Amino acid sequence: MAKNNPGNFFEDFHLGQVIAHATPRTVTTGDVSLYTALYGSRFAVQSSEAFACAIGYPHAPIDDLLVFHIVFGKTVPDISLNAVANLGYADCRFLTPVYAGDTLSATSEVIGLRENSNRRTGVVYVRSTGRNTAGAPVLDYVRWVMVHKRDHAASAPQEHVPVLPKAVPVESLGKACPPLKPGAYDNALAGSAQRFGDYAPGERIDHVDGMTVEEAEHQLATRLYQNTARIHFNQFIEAKGRFGRRLIYGGHVISLARALSFNGLANAFHIAAINGGRHVAPLFAGDTVFAWSQVIERADLPGREDVGALRLRLIATRNRGCADFPDCIAEDYDPNVILDLDYWALLPR
Amino acid sequence: MAKNNPGNFFEDFHLGQVIAHATPRTVTTGDVSLYTALYGSRFAVQSSEAFACAIGYPHAPIDDLLVFHIVFGKTVPDISLNAVANLGYADCRFLTPVYAGDTLSATSEVIGLRENSNRRTGVVYVRSTGRNTAGAPVLDYVRWVMVHKRDHAASAPQEHVPVLPKAVPVESLGKACPPLKPGAYDNALAGSAQRFGDYAPGERIDHVDGMTVEEAEHQLATRLYQNTARIHFNQFIEAKGRFGRRLIYGGHVISLARALSFNGLANAFHIAAINGGRHVAPLFAGDTVFAWSQVIERADLPGREDVGALRLRLIATRNRGCADFPDCIAEDYDPNVILDLDYWALLPR
Amino acid sequence: MAKNNPGNFFEDFHLGQVIAHATPRTVTTGDVSLYTALYGSRFAVQSSEAFACAIGYPHAPIDDLLVFHIVFGKTVPDISLNAVANLGYADCRFLTPVYAGDTLSATSEVIGLRENSNRRTGVVYVRSTGRNTAGAPVLDYVRWVMVHKRDHAASAPQEHVPVLPKAVPVESLGKACPPLKPGAYDNALAGSAQRFGDYAPGERIDHVDGMTVEEAEHQLATRLYQNTARIHFNQFIEAKGRFGRRLIYGGHVISLARALSFNGLANAFHIAAINGGRHVAPLFAGDTVFAWSQVIERADLPGREDVGALRLRLIATRNRGCADFPDCIAEDYDPNVILDLDYWALLPR
Repeated sequence: MAKNNPGNFFEDFHLGQVIAHATPRTVTTGDVSLYTALYGSRFAVQSSEAFACAIGYPHAPIDDLLVFHIVFGKTVPDISLNAVANLGYADCRFLTPVYAGDTLSATSEVIGLRENSNRRTGVVYVRSTGRNTAGAPVLDYVRWVMVHKRDHAASAPQEHVPVLPKAVPVESLGKACPPLKPGAYDNALAGSAQRFGDYAPGERIDHVDGMTVEEAEHQLATRLYQNTARIHFNQFIEAKGRFGRRLIYGGHVISLARALSFNGLANAFHIAAINGGRHVAPLFAGDTVFAWSQVIERADLPGREDVGALRLRLIATRNRGCADFPDCIAEDYDPNVILDLDYWALLPR
Repeated sequence: MAKNNPGNFFEDFHLGQVIAHATPRTVTTGDVSLYTALYGSRFAVQSSEAFACAIGYPHAPIDDLLVFHIVFGKTVPDISLNAVANLGYADCRFLTPVYAGDTLSATSEVIGLRENSNRRTGVVYVRSTGRNTAGAPVLDYVRWVMVHKRDHAASAPQEHVPVLPKAVPVESLGKACPPLKPGAYDNALAGSAQRFGDYAPGERIDHVDGMTVEEAEHQLATRLYQNTARIHFNQFIEAKGRFGRRLIYGGHVISLARALSFNGLANAFHIAAINGGRHVAPLFAGDTVFAWSQVIERADLPGREDVGALRLRLIATRNRGCADFPDCIAEDYDPNVILDLDYWALLPR
Repeated sequence: MAKNNPGNFFEDFHLGQVIAHATPRTVTTGDVSLYTALYGSRFAVQSSEAFACAIGYPHAPIDDLLVFHIVFGKTVPDISLNAVANLGYADCRFLTPVYAGDTLSATSEVIGLRENSNRRTGVVYVRSTGRNTAGAPVLDYVRWVMVHKRDHAASAPQEHVPVLPKAVPVESLGKACPPLKPGAYDNALAGSAQRFGDYAPGERIDHVDGMTVEEAEHQLATRLYQNTARIHFNQFIEAKGRFGRRLIYGGHVISLARALSFNGLANAFHIAAINGGRHVAPLFAGDTVFAWSQVIERADLPGREDVGALRLRLIATRNRGCADFPDCIAEDYDPNVILDLDYWALLPR
């Protein structure tokens, strides 16, 4: 029996299958420091134990995207080692705050299967769940990937495509955010006087700054998440591949864009949910990432007077500033757009 | 109202103005590890909890320059986002030791203003203070920057240029260093038998080793300090700029030179004060940094028999070894000199 | 007296000499995070506090190679600053688990000396020992280096070449591994169902994945270990040197190969001993590292029913995949082989 992991092929998945992923991971303040060094994130809640405790957290929470990346990384060897492409994700909800010292583990359940007409590949839908030391879900999300078949002649499974929400409903937001102490949130320390009510649907915000990415940086990040996807690390192979380059992990782009978005959204301190996103174009080392945001919707959270939710579209570009809000629409496509992310952020009222 | 931060222009500052800077930051052992990885610093007091406790600290203190960089980084968005140039700093005093777990925040007071004769820019003098969780000052220093005016026609403020000391007086040194336990300082573990009394004014020390800097390294460092100055990160813009390159944060050079200075000053375990410094020339990725030191003065500290202070001049060069002590004097200027720093270090007697 | 460290030359060493090395170092979770970011290691015992505690450790132990690199780094300024070459190491035994918070220090004893016939260099054999805060040995190993003489005319010491074991005897393995709780080791979380008994002597395992190394990465790693060997950091000097490049620290290669070996040896959770190793060829930034392993021997540990030991040969290559197990034998030498390491790993039964 082969000792190394060949990964799962399309016919290895079946509906309802639950996969326990390897390598539980204790998150530490060391990870927090590296995350800061990799992206320069400046949100006060995650940066300062004192600030977080003042507003009602027991400790500074781990950045939501760091939690996402660690959970995502665990799923790679079982779900996407033989993937042709990551097609999408949806219904990503942050359910419990994560603190330094928590050990994260992950499982995935197969919730959909569809063989492609070429009979060489198929699409696998999984709901992946990250859990803390106590076993409480901290995060769950759906993603779907196109995976190779091992044997093209293998029979197709019963087709099942799950129905996924276009956006996470407002009612289910906020579980990972404790009630904020009234009057405790300090605008000056947080970096902006703009609260929830100061943002209006339709508003666009240029995040101005740009960040050039180096090979060492995205490799350090992706290894930190114990994400083993080969395309990010192996120049010897990728030199002969589609791009001739190592491809930067899409999550690295999300974290860069989110960190840049501080400049204009400094009080959007918590990602409550990710509704979906597209990696419109690849990013490579040497490219400079810019970002802009649009407010899609402003929502009250049922039963909460401390925070409100903004549904935001976060667009990242490469090698192009965002002062004119380069967009990502089929008929007016900007070739420098690399990310189109739709998420819910919480802001203090 | 614009949501992103346009930074302050010259006419936004007024004498006596106090600015609370954003993003308090809890310093952790993760930051310590990154600092070690970035510079390779080997001073025993900061590296070893056991060594620090043996000599009288309650914990290993955070490297003085790491504290400086974190506090400095906070001031950037408010003070120097629209700066033409950082002109200087002075009277930098380390006042309280910082330990892992402390949350640092920063404020700046405007202590001087002088419009330039071209009426397009002005010089702003601020005293910036870093504070720990309890609000005690850990560090304060003056810096002055040349800042753009938003409106060239705006009237000039009353000119006020503060009087700054050429050097921090000996009487005020040592506040961030607890009394050392007699006989507890171990030369072998510290890496040198050379104590305070073994150094003589005028003496020059070649620190021998060189360190080549990579883009990823200085970017990781500067983001770790949450320093957002654009010139360090954005190759897309800088490619068209003055240097065609990202400029390395001057503090990165100071930390590199200080780490190199271990080889010859292993017992200079604490920076008590920085009297001033000049970034004589820029540093870019690919350059190799060397350093040498000269003892300017040797001073007893009033009331202390455990430690003494050396006033040191620390010169860093790029792409040139320091065996012949390349200098930075107007009439005999070495074009490879990049840093001329004047500071007080404490050494055990 | 020179203040900087000239390092020791051959005639500075004498048989029985014990050298206390500088800079004790407290290991923290920050170091663990950096180690993960540098190598992407996925062994569950070191990655997860919860997993480690479940099987019987009081905490997640620090990766064995991180301990090795930190101890090794301390010996460099005293042992190998004037080395022509690192010739070998042997009899490396891990004796006590190291946990975050432990302070490591190191001493070396000179156990052998042999002047070379050219009278310009000599070989120094040292046994180096790393100790924790309480002074308990956590690691010891022998290495021998060829060192320059300061004065070629200096008389030769009495020649003494120590007898070294070809392999660490089975009886002395396992001291740094507590008894595992029966039934507590979870294959799914660990990433493999292959236990001790599933591996057979002679078996070869391709670890499949490749990792490209960047200058910033190996510099960050080597500085993290406070290893000051100049050849790793100084491009200005090395540009004129033998390779024209900075040479990557050999320990970086070992850690990369070990991390890659997870893919096929996921349950080989602890390095109990290193029998010896050769850095067959140098590694430079831009190269991609691959690895494969061969099982040399399978050994029961006296008195232990929880774990068994595999003696493994770990071969790393540069810019060549390992599907056909490129070897490192005199008569059939593969020029892409860079590392040939012989070690004992523990696996659960």
